[in-house]
This record gives sequence, C-alpha cells and structure tokens, in this order.
Amino acid sequence: MPKAIGYAAKAADQALEYFEFERRDPTANDVEIDILYCGVCHSDLHQARNEWGGTVFPCVPGHEIVGKVTRVGNQVSKFKVGDTVGVGCMVDSCQSCANCDAGYEQYCDNGFVGTYNGADKHSGGQTFGGYSNRITVTEKFVLKVADNLDLAGVAPLLCAGITTYSPLRHWGVTEGHRVGVVGLGGLGHMAVKIAKAMGAEVVLFTTSPSKIDDGKRLGADHVVISKDAEQMQAWTNQLDFILNTVAAPHDLDAYLSLLRLNGTMTLVGVPAEAHPSPAVYNLIAKRRSLAGSLIGGIAETQEMLDFCAEHNIISDIEMIDIDNINEAYERMLKSDVKYRFVIDMASLKQK
Amino acid sequence: MPKAIGYAAKAADQALEYFEFERRDPTANDVEIDILYCGVCHSDLHQARNEWGGTVFPCVPGHEIVGKVTRVGNQVSKFKVGDTVGVGCMVDSCQSCANCDAGYEQYCDNGFVGTYNGADKHSGGQTFGGYSNRITVTEKFVLKVADNLDLAGVAPLLCAGITTYSPLRHWGVTEGHRVGVVGLGGLGHMAVKIAKAMGAEVVLFTTSPSKIDDGKRLGADHVVISKDAEQMQAWTNQLDFILNTVAAPHDLDAYLSLLRLNGTMTLVGVPAEAHPSPAVYNLIAKRRSLAGSLIGGIAETQEMLDFCAEHNIISDIEMIDIDNINEAYERMLKSDVKYRFVIDMASLKQK
Repeated sequence: MPKAIGYAAKAADQALEYFEFERRDPTANDVEIDILYCGVCHSDLHQARNEWGGTVFPCVPGHEIVGKVTRVGNQVSKFKVGDTVGVGCMVDSCQSCANCDAGYEQYCDNGFVGTYNGADKHSGGQTFGGYSNRITVTEKFVLKVADNLDLAGVAPLLCAGITTYSPLRHWGVTEGHRVGVVGLGGLGHMAVKIAKAMGAEVVLFTTSPSKIDDGKRLGADHVVISKDAEQMQAWTNQLDFILNTVAAPHDLDAYLSLLRLNGTMTLVGVPAEAHPSPAVYNLIAKRRSLAGSLIGGIAETQEMLDFCAEHNIISDIEMIDIDNINEAYERMLKSDVKYRFVIDMASLKQK
Repeated sequence: MPKAIGYAAKAADQALEYFEFERRDPTANDVEIDILYCGVCHSDLHQARNEWGGTVFPCVPGHEIVGKVTRVGNQVSKFKVGDTVGVGCMVDSCQSCANCDAGYEQYCDNGFVGTYNGADKHSGGQTFGGYSNRITVTEKFVLKVADNLDLAGVAPLLCAGITTYSPLRHWGVTEGHRVGVVGLGGLGHMAVKIAKAMGAEVVLFTTSPSKIDDGKRLGADHVVISKDAEQMQAWTNQLDFILNTVAAPHDLDAYLSLLRLNGTMTLVGVPAEAHPSPAVYNLIAKRRSLAGSLIGGIAETQEMLDFCAEHNIISDIEMIDIDNINEAYERMLKSDVKYRFVIDMASLKQK
C-alpha cells in the first residue's frame, strides 16, 4: 500500500500535526491523485474539533482537492496519467438508491461517503481527506479540471463553489432575477461571483461596511448593510431568491420579508444553535419558502467546474503552507481571510 | 342605504349579539347578495376576540358566504338576479399591483380588503362580514356556485376549501404523489378530500386514534398517529408534499423529515406563538422546503369551486342557528365539531 503523509487532528482538543498513513493501491475503477492544493473549509475545523460529534481520530480533513493523476485502474476510462482533476466532499455513495440514480449522490438515502471521516468501503476504517500528499478515489467521484484557471483558486470550487452553484441553479436563477446573497465569506463570495455570471442582479447583505467595496469588486450590484433597518426595509418584496450563507444563528425574518411572491431563501450553513424560529405569517403572506441545500451531485459539480472555467471564475484565496494550518483555523474563526485559505501541498514534506 | 342585520362582537371580551347596520346600494359594478349560509372559521373567533390585534368594533365576522343575487349594478355582466353565488375572504384589492394583475389578489402588495374588519373603500369604515342577512360586493370578488351541491356544505369551501386547494395545486399535487395532511379539522378534512380527488395517495397525520375511521371515510389512504414515534419513523423520506393545517405550535421537524428529496411542507395555520425552530440540517439533508400559503386568488377560487362541483366535494358540516354562535365558538376551541359549523341564515330574524 502506498505511504501517504498529511496533517491530522489526533484529538478534538489538539492542534493538527504531521501524520503518516496509507492509501490503497488503485483498484480497477480507481484514480490515484498527487494533491497540489487543498482548500480549507469551515467544516474541516468543525470536524477536527469534533464540534458536530462523531469524529473518528486521527482525522485528516480537506475536501477541496486539486491535483494530477498519477495512476489509474484498468477499468478507468475518463482519466489518464497527468490529467488535472478535482475531488470534493464525497468519494463514494451507495450508487443504488433513487437519489444516486438521479445524480443526487449528495442526497444518497444510504448516506454518501465523505472525503474525510467517512466510512471507507475499502479500508473498513475512516476516509482521510486532502490535507495530504496523495489520495485514491473511485473514478465516478473524480472531476475534470480545466487548465486555463489558477489551480489553487479552483480548489475551493469543489466545496464552496458547488455549495452555492447548486441552489442558484436548482432555483432557476437567471438573467432578470434579483438575487440576494447573505454573508460575504468563503461561500458568499463564490455566490456573488456565480449569481452574477448567471446574469442575475446581485444584492449582497453584510454586517460590515468595510466589505462594501470588496462586494462590488466581486460582482454585487448593490451592497446592503444588514444592521441598517432603513436599508433593509427598502428591499421588502424585491428579491426572487436569497442564498443565505451565514451559519451563525440570526433573524431569518429580516431576509424572508425581502422576498417577493413565491420567493425562496435557501440556507447552506448549519448553525450550531438554532436560528430564531421564523414567523409563519412571513412565509404565508407571500407564499415564501425557506429551504436548504447540500453541496451538489457529481454531474452538477462537473457542470459547475465547466461553468467556472467558461466564466473565468475562481475563488479569491490566501495561500498557506501546511505548517500554518492551525493559525489559519484561528484566523478563520475571526473571519480574517479573503476569502478562502488554500494549502500549497508543496509545503508538505516528509519529516 | 339598505338596512342589514347580523351578529357582531361589540368588544373583544363580549359575546356576539344582534346588530343592525347598513349595506351600500349596489354601484355599477356591485352585486347584492341575500346570504343563505355562512361558515364559521377559526379566524372569525380570533378577530372577534381581537387575538391578532387591530380589530375594529363592532365586528361582524364571516367569510364563507353562499347566497342568492338580489340586485346587480348596470355594469355587472357575470351575474344576474337569482344566481347562486359565493364570497370568500376578500371583497376587494388594489387591482393595480403586479400580484393583483397576475390573479393573486390574496398577495396584493397594497393589502387586500378583508370581507370583515377590512378598510371599506366605499363606506370609509370597516367591512362587515357574512354573519348577516345581506352583503354588497364588487362583481370581481363574487364567485359562481353550482347548484348541484348542498349549499350549506359549499359555504366552507370559500375559505377552508381554497386555503387547502391552492397550495395542493401550486405545489403540483397529482396522481402518483404521496401527500401528507397534518391535522383533521376544518382545513384538514378539506385537504384530505381535495388531495384525494387530485389523485394523490393521502397520508393523514392526527394525534387522535379516534379519528382513524373518519380519516379513512374522508379519503385518507393511511392514517398515522403522530404521537407514535415508530409509526412516524416508517414514513421517513416518503412524502412528496405535506400540507400542515395545525395552527398550534408543534415540532415541524417530525414532519419535515418525512419529505423525500425536494419535498415541501406548506403551513396554512398561523400559530399565536412560534413553532419550535426547525432544524436547518433537516432542510439541507434532502433539499426540503418549509413554505406558507394564504387562501387563493379569485380565479383560483372559482377553479376550486368548479373542481369541487365536478368531484362532488363539500365540507362536512354541523348546521347551527345564529343564536348558537357563541356556544359554537366554545366548541370550536375544543375542536368539538365535524368539521365546520355553518350558520343557517334563515335563523337570523329582525328583533
């Protein structure tokens, strides 16, 4: 079995540190990947610190992976050695339920296999993620990555990109729509770029006046300071769709009331504590919906990567060495990143 | 001005009593109606007791009206003297906003005029509802009622019928769908009948084992006792749509988790206190939506009446004399009615 190296949390209260483990040799359907870059998602921190419960240690996080193919199994038809590829939040699913059959592997009725801390069908243990030099993944869960974009900036598309692209697409965002984006972090900044590229008029909601200029640079047509009741009021009944990327508990009604008839606000962040309960009358008054969305299926993730390649969209990133991952986590907790940390895996060397 | 008689609440803490007032003479576009029956909706009680705030006294409730046309204005083209007609929750709207233009008068951006306690454009005071011998309504807000059904049983269609028909239609309920109905009261029993007539497989959720037989008689294919966790569990990920008619605060997650991918639960009851906040993960896990819906537009209300006439659907009612309205309110508070009280207006006589 090929040796792998990476960074792992060995307990919920310990910093991530150097870790040696094994990856499997490619089976007939597998693709082996040399990891070049891995984005740092807030979920990585939640999982490493066992904030959601259920973390199996050691835990190697990372599900925004870009790399090069080094070996392929003899049944692999879509990839060859040297191809640039990506791996996102899933490395497998049951592939036999109705949702998998329909291309919605993220909603697999038997639970998809997460890229880390998932139940590895091959090893019988848990999966290890992208804070690592290599990974072996079944072909179906590997994505093609175009070479025309900066690959470090592509990595976050594999989670932050698809998490925002999928609901924007599912709820039919297109030219002529007025779309709200709540929060300007890793997810929010991707949502602004993608919604704009889909042709929508984009209204960004942020608590920070310091983000107005950046919001506009990223593509927002309007930036609303959400603490300003008067500014909020002016958008009542004005939006077709809202993508709410804020995971901290907050007043959903302030946003629901901005939706026009039949409008939907979709949540993609899971708060540790519940949001205040939304007012039923606010839903009823304009037949509004409050929805949720989880990453995207494999076919849709490929569609998103192709869309981003076509529209020249990548994530705004801050590149770090893997030695700085623990410091990056602390900065992420303070939202001190524009807008995604990406680990340069060249910094990971055998010790 | 024609004299009218009815029953009114004269203060929030007083029983309804006999009340004399005036209706307007029909203007060019008006239809004057002799009221035969008026259904008793829980909203009547809320408004009469000022439980929502904003009630102007005296308040004549009633928005499930069936009667006969007695006079028409000279511009009226759809109705003639002697026609059987209905009036629901609205008697007017701005008729100039985008929602009114689209036939969604119930979502009028300037607020529709309620059949009672609305801002009467003609009198400058408040509107008086159907607990009365006569009413004058602008033609556009008057519905045609087929004579093949029992007219007392038709009255509740004007609110309970359209409140359930509209979301079932909007969310595309049809043959092959599995639809949950939560609660078997005035709204719930209509939802069961209508969803069944639309071709759906209907799953009724009730807290009362005593309602199993009645639920099946009304058309439910399955009746689930919602307090039984094991029974509930068996329906996880099984329903395409849920119409939740329960206005009392309750655990929405217990129902949201029964929706399959892309499923929606629509609330039509407004609780006085908030429901416990639904778990965001429950929405995200299967791209579920929590929505609200408010009565229906005029064109859709006509469509509903025609659908019910075609499918021989009326409300199960208990007829009362208007003298018994205060007792009926007390029984309604105990859910002691199968499934709607209807006032026989022949019992309203000048004192």
